[in-house]
Amino acid sequence: MKIVIVGGGFGGLYAAQALRRVANVQITLVDKRNFHLFQPLLYQVATGSLSPGEIAAPLRSVLKDQQNTQVLMAEVTGIDAAAKKLELDGGAEHLDYDALIVATGSRTSYFGNDQWAEEAPGLKTVEDATRIRHKILRAFEAAEKEDDPELRRAYLTFLIVGGGPTGVELAGAIAEIANDTLRHDFRSIRPEESRILVLDGGPRVLGAFPEELSEKAERSLLRMGVRTRNGVRVTGVDADGVLLQSGERVAAKTVIWAAGVAASGFGKVLSEATKCELDRGGRVIVGPDLTVPGYPEIFVIGDAAAAKDKAGNPLPGVAPVAMQQGRYAAHQVVADPALPRPPFVYHNKGNLAVIGRASAVADFGWLKVSGFLAWLLWLFIHLMYVVEFENRLLVFIKWGIQYFTFNRGARLITGEPAREKDTPVSG
Amino acid sequence: MKIVIVGGGFGGLYAAQALRRVANVQITLVDKRNFHLFQPLLYQVATGSLSPGEIAAPLRSVLKDQQNTQVLMAEVTGIDAAAKKLELDGGAEHLDYDALIVATGSRTSYFGNDQWAEEAPGLKTVEDATRIRHKILRAFEAAEKEDDPELRRAYLTFLIVGGGPTGVELAGAIAEIANDTLRHDFRSIRPEESRILVLDGGPRVLGAFPEELSEKAERSLLRMGVRTRNGVRVTGVDADGVLLQSGERVAAKTVIWAAGVAASGFGKVLSEATKCELDRGGRVIVGPDLTVPGYPEIFVIGDAAAAKDKAGNPLPGVAPVAMQQGRYAAHQVVADPALPRPPFVYHNKGNLAVIGRASAVADFGWLKVSGFLAWLLWLFIHLMYVVEFENRLLVFIKWGIQYFTFNRGARLITGEPAREKDTPVSG
Repeated sequence: MKIVIVGGGFGGLYAAQALRRVANVQITLVDKRNFHLFQPLLYQVATGSLSPGEIAAPLRSVLKDQQNTQVLMAEVTGIDAAAKKLELDGGAEHLDYDALIVATGSRTSYFGNDQWAEEAPGLKTVEDATRIRHKILRAFEAAEKEDDPELRRAYLTFLIVGGGPTGVELAGAIAEIANDTLRHDFRSIRPEESRILVLDGGPRVLGAFPEELSEKAERSLLRMGVRTRNGVRVTGVDADGVLLQSGERVAAKTVIWAAGVAASGFGKVLSEATKCELDRGGRVIVGPDLTVPGYPEIFVIGDAAAAKDKAGNPLPGVAPVAMQQGRYAAHQVVADPALPRPPFVYHNKGNLAVIGRASAVADFGWLKVSGFLAWLLWLFIHLMYVVEFENRLLVFIKWGIQYFTFNRGARLITGEPAREKDTPVSG
Repeated sequence: MKIVIVGGGFGGLYAAQALRRVANVQITLVDKRNFHLFQPLLYQVATGSLSPGEIAAPLRSVLKDQQNTQVLMAEVTGIDAAAKKLELDGGAEHLDYDALIVATGSRTSYFGNDQWAEEAPGLKTVEDATRIRHKILRAFEAAEKEDDPELRRAYLTFLIVGGGPTGVELAGAIAEIANDTLRHDFRSIRPEESRILVLDGGPRVLGAFPEELSEKAERSLLRMGVRTRNGVRVTGVDADGVLLQSGERVAAKTVIWAAGVAASGFGKVLSEATKCELDRGGRVIVGPDLTVPGYPEIFVIGDAAAAKDKAGNPLPGVAPVAMQQGRYAAHQVVADPALPRPPFVYHNKGNLAVIGRASAVADFGWLKVSGFLAWLLWLFIHLMYVVEFENRLLVFIKWGIQYFTFNRGARLITGEPAREKDTPVSG
């Protein structure tokens, strides 16, 4: 039996690993990247704490001992659902399947304003993370050279659009860079005078968390010098800042977009081939068994799927959902076809968001924790999940060093300066 | 007294640090990058052992406690030597100096065939290193998908042009990737069947070392599956391989250029302004005190300078020369101008080249060592020099893990695939 898994994120990887001991299956994991990325720590790459290599593991390396599985580095560009055949790299190759698990994840969404991507990068890929890192560090460099006080202030203003976990994590980390890491690095500017703002359209940051934890998070951020502005909508982004719906302009040379995601492009390809429906975010609307209506052999999981819980609420786009769906899909693929399929049920083990050093919030439903204890929990859970042993150890050591020294090692500005249009080095 | 140092490599950084305790000087270190790069370990980034952040230290961070020193991220684009003034970023700013230390380093040279750069990257910058890493890893990925045996062989052929220390280090590391790291990662190809060739124009690899050590190095390489071909000249490079002077073609999808360097462009700017002479490699021909003739306040050091030892032989372009010259120039700048300047004398403490796991050669003049002992020496010396404590510790741990597990953590292929023309992913 030929099983093809598209995408090596949490969903795809867990699906492949769930089939580790199953005989008589040939699994092909296709990904256009050669590595699995531990996205929950991507903000630490964006803010110079970790190097990309430390939160990524080569897919071949993770699956090297799984003899029933082949890894293929290619992009899936088409599907013939009737013939059960995938098109790779625009037709360069084809791949037959008996069962297909689509786990193609999500990308940053600007809600129809893709032109904002140039000035306000999102945080989904390693390239995004290094781009944000360059933007932040260049802003301090440019401020150091700038004589005009107004421009200097714009260079030292950091706007984060979106107050979800990613936005809060980024804001906290930028505050630490300004307050601690760079404190003594400059001669003309004082990095600790930077303005860091989180703009959110909802009534509070961390809208998915209970209200009391949102409040605690806002207070923690404020103590670090991060101001949150709720109920504001961004209607324009350019190289000099953002325009709010109220007509107010906020001047900032660094804008980071953490306000929304949409499914990757493969959902559209699948919907054209199978006539399945997509939701507004481009996610495939799947049945209770995560398959495409009319195609019981095609599963869609993780951020690529619009699945619902028992109460009919959409499942959130977080790693635990993808991992549980990956395992579920893997088990259904090899289950006895004579038996009825049980529906997928998500077991929510809790939500965590980190704010900064020794500061986080955790919601387990029956228990709400904040501060140092929540941070320890966050630390422990994230370390346990970082895929490979070597990375886990290194990340732990690096965090330990950083915790005591306030230093951040991965502060390089790389890339061809001419090609990057992020932030001009001189005003 | 205003001292400007251009370039934050070994020469510039050591010059700045040598002036740490000198009062009444204002030092400005200008670099277009924001980090010091530990170039001797760059080949480990190119071959996936280390992440860029681990061999680089932000210049501001290194010099943060040195109160007499300011770091400026800018490119020096011109000089008015009579007015003692530098032009930054094409005229955006200017910088006065009383003494100038030029330490702008070198870049890869293709001896007039710059069009080869596209297909045969050199190894001088972080971007070069990640580009080489992508090329090597993509070649294995493409080979895995390739059905044509001839093309597959071309993907699994790795040509290194140049048999100096860099070429030998790269060849050894690629052999380890093929033999150990990727051994179980593929299903269609056998990475250990890769061909790795070192092409050198001279009669032997490591031409700067004594003959017996060159022989030992060649034997070590051969044991790892690397063939060295001496006395060959490359007369053409394209996407499918190289053409030799003999008319022979060697098909290879991965060609790495380790055959030559030339001084960075600032030497030319300086020579136009001061009428000083350059050698064939673009290096400024300096006097015995490393200054430009007629300009006792302009020092040129490291790879940017063509300096000679007592016997009249040119000094090699290695880190120890740059570091000693940096310290020398710093001391002369603040020395009593009434006293005569002693000439610069290079103290050669030995040459080292690493070949692979537990294999290196070391030449101390009075002592020649090879094998495990030379490798331990190499390890010790390089760790001692890696600039910041944190990096030193991390690199050590990473090497330890790698030594015992044969794994390499930093094996990411990043960057926008569309922009990179290195190696097409499909044949």
